[in-house]
Amino acid sequence: MKVLITGAGGFLGRAVAARALELPGLSRLVLADRSFNDPPVAGCDYAAGDLMEHAFVEGLTEPGFDLILHLASLPGALAECEPAQGYAINLHSSLTLARLAAARRSGAQFVFASSIAVYGQLGGATVRDETATNPILSYGAHKLMTEIFLSDLTRRGELRAISLRLPGLVARSTTESGHGSAFMSHIFRKIAAGEAYACPVSATASCWWLSRAAAAEAVIHGATLSPLRPTVLQLPALRATMAEVAAAIERVTGRRANVTWGDDTQLTRLFGAMPELDATTALRLGFHADDNLDDLVRNSLEMAAVRC
Amino acid sequence: MKVLITGAGGFLGRAVAARALELPGLSRLVLADRSFNDPPVAGCDYAAGDLMEHAFVEGLTEPGFDLILHLASLPGALAECEPAQGYAINLHSSLTLARLAAARRSGAQFVFASSIAVYGQLGGATVRDETATNPILSYGAHKLMTEIFLSDLTRRGELRAISLRLPGLVARSTTESGHGSAFMSHIFRKIAAGEAYACPVSATASCWWLSRAAAAEAVIHGATLSPLRPTVLQLPALRATMAEVAAAIERVTGRRANVTWGDDTQLTRLFGAMPELDATTALRLGFHADDNLDDLVRNSLEMAAVRC
Repeated sequence: MKVLITGAGGFLGRAVAARALELPGLSRLVLADRSFNDPPVAGCDYAAGDLMEHAFVEGLTEPGFDLILHLASLPGALAECEPAQGYAINLHSSLTLARLAAARRSGAQFVFASSIAVYGQLGGATVRDETATNPILSYGAHKLMTEIFLSDLTRRGELRAISLRLPGLVARSTTESGHGSAFMSHIFRKIAAGEAYACPVSATASCWWLSRAAAAEAVIHGATLSPLRPTVLQLPALRATMAEVAAAIERVTGRRANVTWGDDTQLTRLFGAMPELDATTALRLGFHADDNLDDLVRNSLEMAAVRC
Repeated sequence: MKVLITGAGGFLGRAVAARALELPGLSRLVLADRSFNDPPVAGCDYAAGDLMEHAFVEGLTEPGFDLILHLASLPGALAECEPAQGYAINLHSSLTLARLAAARRSGAQFVFASSIAVYGQLGGATVRDETATNPILSYGAHKLMTEIFLSDLTRRGELRAISLRLPGLVARSTTESGHGSAFMSHIFRKIAAGEAYACPVSATASCWWLSRAAAAEAVIHGATLSPLRPTVLQLPALRATMAEVAAAIERVTGRRANVTWGDDTQLTRLFGAMPELDATTALRLGFHADDNLDDLVRNSLEMAAVRC
């Protein structure tokens, strides 16, 4: 089985790449990204290039992959400021990659890292399979368009795609930029380092939480599912307030949280006003979130024996 | 005011072009299509070319239009058989046109001829603003993706777009091809010509009906609305069975219908199982369907003093 991972040098991509090496029947693993900072992993081929360049995507898909894990994207906040780049990476290159992957290997499996940004402003109602989408960022609009495109290619039999809607993943390093949800990661890093943190949202802001390790496992699990399932899935996530997460970080790290709380309206609207989540369909298909908040902290700070 | 109409040589486009000449403040009207069969209309500029070619779209949008009426598309049934062409015309060229139009003239008005194909298979429930979309043809998927894209450009202030969801329009000539809904037009033409007609769906198939004249009026009306309205609208349409429409055609034309009825499952599923339609939002904004079935027949056969 030939496997391609895009965005493989990124936060999620590095963890997915480590897990992909264990896929049964793997014959070739190609990791694609603009550049790679980590030392090369044995058993992988590296393809450094820009998905915005048609020739790169053409060459990249040339081997005819059985499975494509498409994780590359420009973060939402950055895409909002750089709309031409956002269009090129988040929409155009996704469509091109999907079309070329299908042309090279009809019926190939394709796992797409979509986002809860497709919903836009959620009200108080529990989010379910049938929750309406109404993106309020170009990032979310482009993710939603890609979901629709992949569902259509799947209906036609050209791909066997699944789009997984991911929440903001934790805990990114404090040097990563462009993510509106960065505060959700920084609180882990700052408390663990014993540093003060000025959180831009309030202690009662309610977010959906998923560790990188749990997200990577979900992406790999998505690749093992039978074709007879929905083409778009909301992944399970833990719902908790900032204060609850801060308390869990204290508990697990043994550090005292030194956090001051803000009231950024836009960030609260986008990430800190999340209602209940009913991810029954995904749970039934074997996806799962971190077990509880302590597990989230351990996975996020990679304190446990996580496999990435 | 500089106005561009794409698909201006087509069934809807010809009627819209005739109406656009009456737009207040019109300084230039450019009609674009692959080719034009009708004699040129005085007061219009003609641009013959292929929207699939980037250079054509670049040149076309060069004047910086205040209003773009984007009607060009590859019909659904044809697009399903020719997916590469369908992608290029129904999705890619729409995105390119919108982006270039916005780049030339930020905040330009943009009216997009979307389609009820965005819904996919409808159940028995009344269709309302909040009805879920789930296209089952690439044509519908591409229309839906374009709606989302235009809503996002509108949110950003780059365009002031409105997408109007149109049902199959009547009555196309019997020589036009590629439309799954062609039977809805043929029944008018055949009965009016006194010819026998083997209708592929049953007498009780329930369809949504809109004449070309009413659709053209809706497109022009869409261009006159204030920016403070939804970016996607379901247009009003008459709901009636094939038998009811056949009876109206008999009544208005004075011809006896000589129709045998079929039971094509796919066509019935796509066009002949339409539930009630609640188009309150569009009605409140001044859109309207044909007044009644007799009016539909007169407008569709252009027997009345319609203006196109």
